[in-house]
Amino acid sequence: MKKLVIIGGGFAGVNLARALRKTPDVDITLVDKNNYNFFPPLLYQVATGFLEPSNISYPFRKLFTHQKNIRFRMGTLERIDANNNRVILSNGELDYDYLVLATGTVSNDFGMASIRKNALHMKTIDDAIEIRNTMLQRIEEATLIPDPEARNPYKTIVIAGGGPTGVEIAGMLAEMRKNVFHKDYPEFKGTAIRICLIDAAPVLLTPMSQKAQHYTRETLTKMGVEVMLNVQVKDYNNDKVMLSDGTVIETKILVWAAGVTSSIFNGIPESSIDRGRRMRVNPFQLVDGTTNIFAIGDTCLMLSDPKFPNGHPQVAQVALQQGKNLAHNLKAFFKNQPMKKPFRYYDKGSMAIIGRMKATADIPKPKWNMTGFAAWMMWLFIHLFFLISYRNRVLTMYNWTVSYFTKDQALRMIIRPKESPE
Amino acid sequence: MKKLVIIGGGFAGVNLARALRKTPDVDITLVDKNNYNFFPPLLYQVATGFLEPSNISYPFRKLFTHQKNIRFRMGTLERIDANNNRVILSNGELDYDYLVLATGTVSNDFGMASIRKNALHMKTIDDAIEIRNTMLQRIEEATLIPDPEARNPYKTIVIAGGGPTGVEIAGMLAEMRKNVFHKDYPEFKGTAIRICLIDAAPVLLTPMSQKAQHYTRETLTKMGVEVMLNVQVKDYNNDKVMLSDGTVIETKILVWAAGVTSSIFNGIPESSIDRGRRMRVNPFQLVDGTTNIFAIGDTCLMLSDPKFPNGHPQVAQVALQQGKNLAHNLKAFFKNQPMKKPFRYYDKGSMAIIGRMKATADIPKPKWNMTGFAAWMMWLFIHLFFLISYRNRVLTMYNWTVSYFTKDQALRMIIRPKESPE
Repeated sequence: MKKLVIIGGGFAGVNLARALRKTPDVDITLVDKNNYNFFPPLLYQVATGFLEPSNISYPFRKLFTHQKNIRFRMGTLERIDANNNRVILSNGELDYDYLVLATGTVSNDFGMASIRKNALHMKTIDDAIEIRNTMLQRIEEATLIPDPEARNPYKTIVIAGGGPTGVEIAGMLAEMRKNVFHKDYPEFKGTAIRICLIDAAPVLLTPMSQKAQHYTRETLTKMGVEVMLNVQVKDYNNDKVMLSDGTVIETKILVWAAGVTSSIFNGIPESSIDRGRRMRVNPFQLVDGTTNIFAIGDTCLMLSDPKFPNGHPQVAQVALQQGKNLAHNLKAFFKNQPMKKPFRYYDKGSMAIIGRMKATADIPKPKWNMTGFAAWMMWLFIHLFFLISYRNRVLTMYNWTVSYFTKDQALRMIIRPKESPE
Repeated sequence: MKKLVIIGGGFAGVNLARALRKTPDVDITLVDKNNYNFFPPLLYQVATGFLEPSNISYPFRKLFTHQKNIRFRMGTLERIDANNNRVILSNGELDYDYLVLATGTVSNDFGMASIRKNALHMKTIDDAIEIRNTMLQRIEEATLIPDPEARNPYKTIVIAGGGPTGVEIAGMLAEMRKNVFHKDYPEFKGTAIRICLIDAAPVLLTPMSQKAQHYTRETLTKMGVEVMLNVQVKDYNNDKVMLSDGTVIETKILVWAAGVTSSIFNGIPESSIDRGRRMRVNPFQLVDGTTNIFAIGDTCLMLSDPKFPNGHPQVAQVALQQGKNLAHNLKAFFKNQPMKKPFRYYDKGSMAIIGRMKATADIPKPKWNMTGFAAWMMWLFIHLFFLISYRNRVLTMYNWTVSYFTKDQALRMIIRPKESPE
């Protein structure tokens, strides 16, 4: 019986585990720091109160109820003892014959302590709920301040990062400002919240087509979002965001979606750590310099795919396809046969939603860009389809339908359970 | 324009506010420490993962969107400056002409510091999520302990209090143990969680009929709950629950539903504080010794209702009816006319759910007790009906229907947002 340990239950890890469900003679342990899988592309809808955490997450133990060759282990990877084929977790150790790192990425603060400490990050469900709570709390506080000048930092929202996450949060907040805010907060009598979206690049949605970039910028600007390009956040202290061009924005709410980086684990050859701290892998996902440690998803960098000589984009589709492809190769590897199928990414296109009935999509074949209502409908259906369970699909569809017709979202409760007693 | 300040947005406060929606010449401020109303009778379903917080809660600002004479204020009452008709909140002050205290109750630890500190209380949505998180976390931890003896405290759940909350949690956990636990935790290979329900009285559900009490005890025992009566919890330290008969139960999870008490506010005449720290009120809810301060719901004690000479039970129906009745009287009072309608409680009966298709209900007219499937159906429909919004009803019904058919509940995610940055 081969022991396979998978660290991380995101798109890559879960798709690998599921694709091995009928493989005998393998004993899989999936390790994750949370007891649930979740769907990051819809995280921003949790942050803005359109969806519940439970609409986009699912407990691992329930997910694997009927898969007999897997067990779930809640824990955090601390280091790898590669000589002894052992991983050291926050709460114990596990032996492996094969190790797969599907550890994704973490928020990148580019070494700025003030960002790490004071900004709201946007990588986990806990983060998203924290953003929702903080925004609601700050706006409640704003209602108590009579001086409009002093009130401004409480109702100015700065979003750093013009990728899909930043664009989608900005768009969603602009819709809320239009349809919810003035009804909920008569105290402000028409003075609105301010939404700023900042990126260091000259365009939004850098990897997408020019048409998509142009549409996105124009649409957000029309919706009243202040789009600031070619400028970086340098510091965030005392409620002041400092930009590289000298601008200062006073705000109590800085959402940080400006970049990601990988976690490095002791025990992985330093020589394999590449751009963005990603682990360089061969065409079969084997980490350079190792014989039984694989890396898949956002945390790996593969330079051997002919169409992607600089590596793949860090998106869900790559992670999902790598998980499935590795499962195929491992089945041979378990029998000491050579792995036969080098990974090739099949790009199904990319898309971003900007607002109510506004979205943009790049379709690779035939090379084509869609915008507006049709792209929006496509976005909704594709995202519904990829949710992990029937339950999540039904509840998400219900929440979306109600939001669509009422132009409202109901999840505006500030809920803060305490820290766990130790 | 009369200024009415209502402290507390539970059944009593919200029903008062809504009943005044067409009353001109009154300027209402509703103060609550949360930004949402919630439905306490279903709190235990949040604690056990059958319902989401959002299924039983609703933001105040959304609730009052169309009511022009009310504004919401998030804050906590600290004291009352009765001489100047002013309340001092955690975050500011408010002037009033009339003040209504609808502050409900808090968990009663009977002066035991160890309970206050180490037990899981069960009064708020935050509490319920905390219970859900802690139970899941403890059972995950149990999977890592190979010694069954050492593992026991992690999977023993003690519930103090045999009222509806304690009975309902115990029953729900027993159902989960039967239908979910063995599938989710193959690690335990049949060794089950232990559920103990403790009450100082000789019966469960003290205020209900003997038939209901008997049925409840028998049903819970059959479901494998250890019901311990005539015994009190004396201490809870170092994971040990000490009982008054000398028994010691080792557990990491003590749910405290053993009693409630009222909050006392500086500025209320001490002479009006009565049994259970409730404020004594006249038939029109006016607090003894005051001329413009009212109390309604669980926090007040009225001794003038002929059928309830010792005061009303602290239940939702009383609070709701008192809120509506006070609205009626205030309309006259605002015009300096005498209040005409002394409060009379109309008892619609009481009920408790014990498990899947198992419930009990006392119907007052004709005096009658129902048990089993019919009582269970009635319980479900009545609770659905009383949920505050269409949205909450639909989502609760969906969650219940899925749980019923799958014998499962999906909400098993441990989600812990951080404390707010200050």
